[in-house]
Amino acid sequence: MSLLATKMSSDDLICSRKMARQNGIVQPLLTDLYQITMAYAYWKSGKVNDVAVFDLFFRTNPFQGEFTIFAGLEECLKFLENFHYSDSDIEYLKQTLPENIEPEFFAYLKDLTCKDIKLSAIEEGSVVFPRVPLLRVEGPLIIAQLLETTLLTLVNFASLMATNAARYRMVAGKHVSLLEFGLRRAQGPDGGLSASKYAYIGGFDGTSNVLAGKMFNIPVKGTHAHSFVTSFSTLDDVSSATLSHAETRAPCNLLQLASEWRKKVSSIIDISPEEASDGELAALISYAIAFPSGFMALVDTYDVKRYNFQGLPSRHRQRINGHSGYNSNCGPNGPRIQISPSIDSTYGYSTVERTLRSGLLNFCAVALALNDCGYRALGIRIDSGDLAYLSVLARETFDQIAREFQLPWFSKLTIVASNDINEETILSLNEQGHKIDSFGIGTHLVTCQRQPALGCVYKLVEINSQPRIKLSQDVGKVTIPGHKEAYRLFGADGHALIDLLQRSSEPPPEVGQKVLCRHPFQESKRAYVIPSKVEHLYKMYWSDGHICIKPKPLLEVRERVQSSLRTLRQDIKRNLNPTPYKVAVSDNLYNFIHDLWLQNAPIGELS
Amino acid sequence: MSLLATKMSSDDLICSRKMARQNGIVQPLLTDLYQITMAYAYWKSGKVNDVAVFDLFFRTNPFQGEFTIFAGLEECLKFLENFHYSDSDIEYLKQTLPENIEPEFFAYLKDLTCKDIKLSAIEEGSVVFPRVPLLRVEGPLIIAQLLETTLLTLVNFASLMATNAARYRMVAGKHVSLLEFGLRRAQGPDGGLSASKYAYIGGFDGTSNVLAGKMFNIPVKGTHAHSFVTSFSTLDDVSSATLSHAETRAPCNLLQLASEWRKKVSSIIDISPEEASDGELAALISYAIAFPSGFMALVDTYDVKRYNFQGLPSRHRQRINGHSGYNSNCGPNGPRIQISPSIDSTYGYSTVERTLRSGLLNFCAVALALNDCGYRALGIRIDSGDLAYLSVLARETFDQIAREFQLPWFSKLTIVASNDINEETILSLNEQGHKIDSFGIGTHLVTCQRQPALGCVYKLVEINSQPRIKLSQDVGKVTIPGHKEAYRLFGADGHALIDLLQRSSEPPPEVGQKVLCRHPFQESKRAYVIPSKVEHLYKMYWSDGHICIKPKPLLEVRERVQSSLRTLRQDIKRNLNPTPYKVAVSDNLYNFIHDLWLQNAPIGELS
Repeated sequence: MSLLATKMSSDDLICSRKMARQNGIVQPLLTDLYQITMAYAYWKSGKVNDVAVFDLFFRTNPFQGEFTIFAGLEECLKFLENFHYSDSDIEYLKQTLPENIEPEFFAYLKDLTCKDIKLSAIEEGSVVFPRVPLLRVEGPLIIAQLLETTLLTLVNFASLMATNAARYRMVAGKHVSLLEFGLRRAQGPDGGLSASKYAYIGGFDGTSNVLAGKMFNIPVKGTHAHSFVTSFSTLDDVSSATLSHAETRAPCNLLQLASEWRKKVSSIIDISPEEASDGELAALISYAIAFPSGFMALVDTYDVKRYNFQGLPSRHRQRINGHSGYNSNCGPNGPRIQISPSIDSTYGYSTVERTLRSGLLNFCAVALALNDCGYRALGIRIDSGDLAYLSVLARETFDQIAREFQLPWFSKLTIVASNDINEETILSLNEQGHKIDSFGIGTHLVTCQRQPALGCVYKLVEINSQPRIKLSQDVGKVTIPGHKEAYRLFGADGHALIDLLQRSSEPPPEVGQKVLCRHPFQESKRAYVIPSKVEHLYKMYWSDGHICIKPKPLLEVRERVQSSLRTLRQDIKRNLNPTPYKVAVSDNLYNFIHDLWLQNAPIGELS
Repeated sequence: MSLLATKMSSDDLICSRKMARQNGIVQPLLTDLYQITMAYAYWKSGKVNDVAVFDLFFRTNPFQGEFTIFAGLEECLKFLENFHYSDSDIEYLKQTLPENIEPEFFAYLKDLTCKDIKLSAIEEGSVVFPRVPLLRVEGPLIIAQLLETTLLTLVNFASLMATNAARYRMVAGKHVSLLEFGLRRAQGPDGGLSASKYAYIGGFDGTSNVLAGKMFNIPVKGTHAHSFVTSFSTLDDVSSATLSHAETRAPCNLLQLASEWRKKVSSIIDISPEEASDGELAALISYAIAFPSGFMALVDTYDVKRYNFQGLPSRHRQRINGHSGYNSNCGPNGPRIQISPSIDSTYGYSTVERTLRSGLLNFCAVALALNDCGYRALGIRIDSGDLAYLSVLARETFDQIAREFQLPWFSKLTIVASNDINEETILSLNEQGHKIDSFGIGTHLVTCQRQPALGCVYKLVEINSQPRIKLSQDVGKVTIPGHKEAYRLFGADGHALIDLLQRSSEPPPEVGQKVLCRHPFQESKRAYVIPSKVEHLYKMYWSDGHICIKPKPLLEVRERVQSSLRTLRQDIKRNLNPTPYKVAVSDNLYNFIHDLWLQNAPIGELS
């Protein structure tokens, strides 16, 4: 929060992209072995000149939702551009594959590039739906097959993360800042980097991951940890308390000022300065001296310090102990305890109130001292407890101080909340009413805990101009054969109505013209649509060995996500029981599928 | 399965390790921004010479189990060894941090290395338990703090993956081969590499990930995909059917031989050659010609081809359609349908039987043809349907052919099963009885779907020889303060009894001597233990800027996992309601914790 990344110079950008590419482990060996064994079997069978079409698509939206954000295209293009087996790759394959492999095959691999591949794709950052191919890969069967695993790896997690982030953005609303804090819980170093990148694309505002900031030019954010606070014990630990005034440059003694303010504020916060932690004050002063213009303090370190509930009747004690904040362990469905600000007032404050009062008192004292020196504090972070209640309490305190000392900006201090936050937590906080400006989200975001994998598949749909259909007992797994185009049809109000798959030989649907849209497998499900706008979903991104359309910068992809989501009706995007968006096929494609189906299963009947 | 990686030459190994290091994005900027802002605040407060001790530990075992496998140490050591901010890192930080940061701080960062850090750790691959630190990091506060996020990132996912893999190994038993097939569903490219590496450490036998094979010398395995089969339509697609005999080198016509065998075998398998797919036979012949010594075939591509159930009473039809194999969608708790081999025999075979019969017939035909040419097939892979039943059916077929044609090795053909397998699926298959030799496991393994993050934390426990305790309303979150040692005490039967944390100043527990072991927080819970063996859990791995103990090769770490698991009683390892393993503190440490607790919360009472 305290620190906003400034724009990097373009030299640096080039340098860090170069570095990213060198780091890039996205090389042709990052694949399943069977792609290479199949390549050899194809090569051996004389299928070198066979031409194939593969579709990359998913069958179900993640997170029990009804939409997905497509991401990962830029990395797919980089992969195609750099596709090349190095000498050491070939050496490794020679040692790994059986001895009888013909040496000419390795020579063939050595010279392979993606120059004969054509890759069409939906624009990165678009909302996409089941069965509509995200990528269409055309070209020599062997090479197109060799790309499968890597393309899936690059699209699956990127799209899952971007979708997850977009869902958080939707529940949090437009005005709340969302920060990705997940590096330590991600799937290793690069899992963390991908998570930071695609969370940003999906609608997050920044990351704590510094390397992601450097590599992708994402704003990086951060404050301090509990360990920073606990590393200070007493006020003597403030080694140098002097800060130059922001304007006059005159020396200010921040320790003295903060100590005075602590006394003044204590009556407002209703806690005596003796009860607040001196180590905490020392830590906050030291942090403020280091970052006078970026003072954002963690205020819940001393959550039980000097809390006295001796002599409390046991039922009260239990009530207080039981309230460890529903975010920490119980989740939204766990036990919920209603806290009232005046609970147990006979015996002193509840733990919940006390939690924040030491930290709040110390924070306000330092913020007011900084104000004396010409600096404005940024705000606080709360990392435990009942986030709704604590944020309201903190905001009330800020309002009181703003009134008391005529400092209106004090009301606007930022409140950041972290601690095991997920989509449901935010929904529940929204219901309860909260005063949080910013969420720091880690584990649930980066691991996509609710559904940690998107099931994209890569299916052969045509070979040497002959369509291929994969039949299955499970109709959901039947592939839609042939070389196809996809169109999105929009209504008069600007909302997307339906995605339509057609055979590539068909003329595109036209604005104002009636289009028959059919369910791909259910004969009776059909509808006429008169589109007010027709969007052709595919563009050719790679052809003749070159990137044809330069991938958009991250920031534009990020904007594309929001603009694309705006074209979806609200009921498709809602959290609970969203309406499915329709994906249809043209009448021509419907008949094509079903004729093929009959040819392949002449006496079968499947429904 | 078909292909076993041969050992790489040592030159290649060095080369691929070097490459891995170049790829290594594990650099100091792979951290949370607040580590760097805290470093500056410490630096500004004159804490450059403060000396700290941090413990890295977790609080709860993953997957509702009672043990965890510690992994990631080698990567932590590499990270310490290479810890260095590059010029471009410093440049980025200058641009990113606020303008008023003193330039001397960047000079300080530029020179920072880990030479003054000491890292003690438990041996990689050991079973470990909650609260016992996996790593103890001692040294200058600033540097030790700067290591936090990266060490957590390196340990969290590695340990989670290794634990997950070890759990699969336990339920699968010693004699089943386990293959990791998860690259396409992992958290991006490097998420996939980490998954392959730590799945191998945890007890898997190989991976499909070729780059992981090259980088870590893990055996790589693979066969072919459904798309390989569907890319062939008729027997005319076999371009060259000739294979040289393994011994005589005489040319054999594999197409002719296989076609003859298909006729002979068809009566045994009870399916007419006309009903089996010719495209499938063409594909299998082509694959066999490419890999005559490594013929392993996917046999479930044509799962509904020409299946006739027209005229079937609808209740039967439903019964058949309903059975799409419980692995595919329903999971072990979904609907289960008991299949009997003779179901609906009036109307022909059930879909389940039919599924395999086209693939099985074609496989057996090609395997027998290969046998005529002096080669032995390896086996089959089944990727859909009721894996228990289909594996039994396949094994019975192999046994029949072995008897019929006096080829005893045919009974021993390998059966590989894949398709959305998780721990519960394997347990359920074990219960039902199956004939599977090998599982290929992807999504659930690499995403750790059941719990996608391990919650390791990194806590300050001592600063300038003063202990630090983090109190919390939640006793489970209270840290155990001070510089500690950890011992594992073993009973006379060789099983581990308890892990004991002591203050480092205490003498180690001795064999045959009574040791008082106490619950860290519950006064009444205590026990005397007389160990038959005492293992000091920590070794110093990094000191004075050098790795003191060379990390063991992957294969030895992998063996360590199994030997370490063998020291655990079975009830601690069982899948359902395992017994918790005990972690205790010495009497001295107990009193030390509780004295500190009282000092920090003088009138509080927590329980």
